Formats: sequence, structure tokens, C-alpha cells
Amino acid sequence: VAAAKAEDWVAIAPSDILVMDLAPDSNGKSRRVIIQLMPAPFSQGWVSNIRKLAAAHWWDGTSINRVQDNYVVQWGDATEKKALPNGLAVVEAKEYVTPNWPHKNRIFARADGRPDAYAGAHGFYVGWPLAQGREGLWPVHCYGMVGVGRNLSPDTGTGSELYTVIGHAPRHLDRNIALVGRVIEGIEHMSSLPRGTGALGFYEKEEERVPILSVRIGNEAKDVPAFEYLATDSDSFAAYADARANRRDAFFNVPAGGADICNIPVPIRRKGT
Amino acid sequence: VAAAKAEDWVAIAPSDILVMDLAPDSNGKSRRVIIQLMPAPFSQGWVSNIRKLAAAHWWDGTSINRVQDNYVVQWGDATEKKALPNGLAVVEAKEYVTPNWPHKNRIFARADGRPDAYAGAHGFYVGWPLAQGREGLWPVHCYGMVGVGRNLSPDTGTGSELYTVIGHAPRHLDRNIALVGRVIEGIEHMSSLPRGTGALGFYEKEEERVPILSVRIGNEAKDVPAFEYLATDSDSFAAYADARANRRDAFFNVPAGGADICNIPVPIRRKGT
Repeated sequence: VAAAKAEDWVAIAPSDILVMDLAPDSNGKSRRVIIQLMPAPFSQGWVSNIRKLAAAHWWDGTSINRVQDNYVVQWGDATEKKALPNGLAVVEAKEYVTPNWPHKNRIFARADGRPDAYAGAHGFYVGWPLAQGREGLWPVHCYGMVGVGRNLSPDTGTGSELYTVIGHAPRHLDRNIALVGRVIEGIEHMSSLPRGTGALGFYEKEEERVPILSVRIGNEAKDVPAFEYLATDSDSFAAYADARANRRDAFFNVPAGGADICNIPVPIRRKGT
Repeated sequence: VAAAKAEDWVAIAPSDILVMDLAPDSNGKSRRVIIQLMPAPFSQGWVSNIRKLAAAHWWDGTSINRVQDNYVVQWGDATEKKALPNGLAVVEAKEYVTPNWPHKNRIFARADGRPDAYAGAHGFYVGWPLAQGREGLWPVHCYGMVGVGRNLSPDTGTGSELYTVIGHAPRHLDRNIALVGRVIEGIEHMSSLPRGTGALGFYEKEEERVPILSVRIGNEAKDVPAFEYLATDSDSFAAYADARANRRDAFFNVPAGGADICNIPVPIRRKGT
């Protein structure tokens, strides 16, 4: 990764970033979480809702309400009564999977045929981990991915209730919940929170909840650094993925010979660092 | 799991448990972590060292020194100068893998041929997740597994420096580090600690370290509950593993059709609960 050429790094537009400021921690230190939203053609109904929710400042004054060990951190309106802004779409379950499109071979140009317990094929496209089956393509639940909480019916998630993965990849959620982004900075502000003691890791007392001060789209927030990701169709990424599967530094004596897709996190950094 | 017959649950002997008491948290609440040691024939050289270290009360007064997000929590002597008890074995790299033995077919009686990116076969034996290759069998790095920190040379880990996995399964460590057990209760006292800001997640200031009050083998500690695990060669376990691969509750619309071995954690509970 360090050896990658400058042109292998792709800028992430500020308009594709969600900036979430939590209340300061007990030492008064600020806590900012930065989320990259998922690009077209994936999950765009929900992503569009999320843009509207952020524009309406809907999350300001809501909170992190659930921290379940080795699973998820979830945030939104704990009262479940806060009125949603007008114009949110109801997105149907079929949107969990994107139909295969003509240039599908390009998508898995950097996949390597390693076996996956959850899908016929998997790989990376425009910087995102995807799986593929007969019915199409879908993003996968790796550490730090952000998804849309919902009730029993698959079309009940608006995007106002969000979660991120803080444990082993819960790939059984793939195709059952919409993934809309990933945390690219500050996940430690969520993953290190005290675990909730209620069912499913929900906090039982109001004072345990972590207040959300504001959530803004990147170009409406202050002091947002520029981010970039390593192009997943670059030779640099291919070399990186291979190095993840076969570690060559002196510590390792037996190369694994493979890596699951969630053990090949796409490199993301502050621009130029 | 709830439907499993009483006889499908196997008692874990107190002598196979390590009880680690951390200093109370900032609210004065006690923090106890319970680790089950790995049974024969796996990693027994290191496990034997760990029993000697606990008997010598060697960890009392040491600390948790490293918390790396989505990776590991590590504890031991931060000074790296504390004298070790006499009689610890130097265990060689070949001990990372246990040769196949005659009744090997039984080992993977409940494996299901699901693909694994890291090994030719995988499954469960006497309650533990294992992988198998031509050279033998080895335990795998799932969430909560406990391993032996070491320096560059593979025989440098005594068992005095230990870590547990708090993120996506780092399976590339399999066969490169000794696994000696798993956390069966209280992992949240480690996984929710503040992440270290130094290289590899080490704490940079002494006051950030979490003091370890004591580490004892279960039958030498006070108020240790009895634990039991679901027999991995039982029909109950087979039904559980299948349910992990194909969730049948109302929330799920698309069953995954598979599960990686670290997404099938062996059920462990306080006896009779």
C-alpha cells in the first residue's frame, strides 16, 4: 500500500461523506465518526433517504442506543416517535440485490476465485467489497460497514435507524438488510463503547445512550479532511490483496494461502498521508 | 440451542479455566474475564506453561497493554523485565499444528464441506473450531480465541504474554501463533476498552494500562460458576450449525446457505441456565 502510485488513489467526494459528531467523551474529548456512502448502483433508495435526513438535521439530538458485543452499534431515535422528514422513499426488498449488468466481468477483475461460504463469487468494485450470485450483486457485511435497521418487513427500513458492524463479519445479514456505507474514520468511538445490558445489546437506561450532536453531509460540515481509497482495479490493490493472503513479513512462517473478503479491507486514508 | 437435551451439554472442568480479575472500572464495578484452556492434544506445551504462570501468581500486578481496534487485546508484563518462574518449556513452531491421528474422520463429523478460504477442511472437535490440511490439524483464530504473543522467532512465546481476538477473525495468524484457549465470559471488559494510540494499539501512557489484580486456575479462584458447552458431535450442535447457515426466524428473507466457521461460535453457558 505504501508503494502504491499517487494515481492509484481515488478521491472520495465530500458529498459522499456523512460526518457524525457525538457528544464529547468523559474526558471532554471530541468524537467524530466519518462514514462514506455507497455509490450507485447499490442501495441508492436508502442512500437518497439518508441524504434527506442529514439535510433536515434529523439525527441532531438522537443517540447511540445499542452496542452488542461482536455484532453491531446502532443509532437513531430512541423514542421511535420522532417525525421523519417528508419525501422519504419506501424501498423494497428487491433493492438489496443489484441485477448483474453487462460489464460484470470487470467487476471481479481483481477477485481471485478464493472460496467463500456465502456466495458463488466475490470481489471488489469501485472500492467496495461485493458478492455475486445468479440473481445479481450485493455489498457484504464486513467490519465497519453501515446498514439500515428495520422491522420484520424488509421494506420497513427508511435509513433513519443505522448500525455499523463491530465484530466478526455477520454475512448472514447480506441480502437481508441494506448496506449503505462504511465507517472510514473514528469507528473506535463506537466499537469501544460499553456494551448494552438489555436484549440485543440495547442500553437499558437513558443516561447510557451516547448523544449525537449532529450528522451532516461532508460539504456541509466543518473541518472535514479529504479522503481517498486505493483503486480496487489497480495493480497496487492486486498486490495488496495478495499480500493479505500471503503475508511476507518476517513474523509469518506459514502463509495462509487465502483470505476471506472481509480480511482484505480496502485501504482508505486522509489524502496525501 | 434452547431445545438441546441436557445430556448434550458437557461440563468444563474448573481446572481447565483461567480466571482473570481486572481492576474495577471507573464506576467501581468489578471486571472478571473467564478463559477456557485448550484441551489435549492442542498447544499443550504452552497451556502447561500457562498453568505454571497462574500457579506462581505471575500475572498479578501486570496489565492490559494493547488494544488494537478490529484486532486484539493483549496483556502481560509491560516492562518485559519481570522474571519468569522456573520450569517453563520452550515450545517449538511445529507444535502449532497437531499431526492427523487415526480417528480423524470423527473430528469433522459435523463439518459440512462448506468452503473455507484458509484450509482444506474445517469443523469442530470436543467443542473447538479446527482447520485441517495435509500436515495436520490446528485451532483457528475466531473472535474471543486466546493466543500466545511472541517475538519474531516462532519459539519465543512462553505463554506469559497473551492476547484475545476482538474483531474479524484474523485467520492469517493460524499456524503462526499458538492458540491456547478462548474467552467464555466477560470479553466485553476487554473489547470495550479504549483503543491504544501507539503503534499496533499499544497504550502510550502507563495510566492507560488496565491493572490485572490476579489470574488463577478455576479451582483456586473464588465464586467461579460452573460452565458447560454444547457437544459438537451432538445432533443438537448439527441443528444449531445448520440454523446459523440458514436463519429461519421471521427477520430473514434470504438464507445465506452457508456460514464460515467463526460465524458458528460453540454455545457455552453457565451450567443449567
